[in-house]
Amino acid sequence: MNVRVKVTIALKEGMLDPEARAIQQALANLGFGTERLSSARLFYITLEASSTKEAEQKVRQMCERLLANPVIHRYAIEVEG
Amino acid sequence: MNVRVKVTIALKEGMLDPEARAIQQALANLGFGTERLSSARLFYITLEASSTKEAEQKVRQMCERLLANPVIHRYAIEVEG
Repeated sequence: MNVRVKVTIALKEGMLDPEARAIQQALANLGFGTERLSSARLFYITLEASSTKEAEQKVRQMCERLLANPVIHRYAIEVEG
Repeated sequence: MNVRVKVTIALKEGMLDPEARAIQQALANLGFGTERLSSARLFYITLEASSTKEAEQKVRQMCERLLANPVIHRYAIEVEG
């Protein structure tokens, strides 16, 4: 069956995020003050698997091997069915 | 008050996403077949506003003026309180 999985990948707590700081500064230059700004990436993956559990395991491996850098990123996997 | 807003920015339906295709290909090269793969960006913004409605309006302007390209992106704003 086809399973749709949503993966959120973000920098671990405490990691510097220069891109987010640059965006925050650019917003400030346009007159938009912000207290905090952080960013993350989302992937929606549809894959063939025999169960949602198998789909989750496959996507976890994709995260470990390609999508995320486990040293600096944390990721969350949600099976959407 | 401080309001936390989550912004999801993705390419509009039908736009080509060469980055997603490259990731899908790289996953395939590692043995991970996928039926579909699409990506999006997430921003978590905390800002000062007098109401959640005002916060949403401000973030909508941020999207229109900086965060998204309205020609190619669609965005969703969720006020998290």
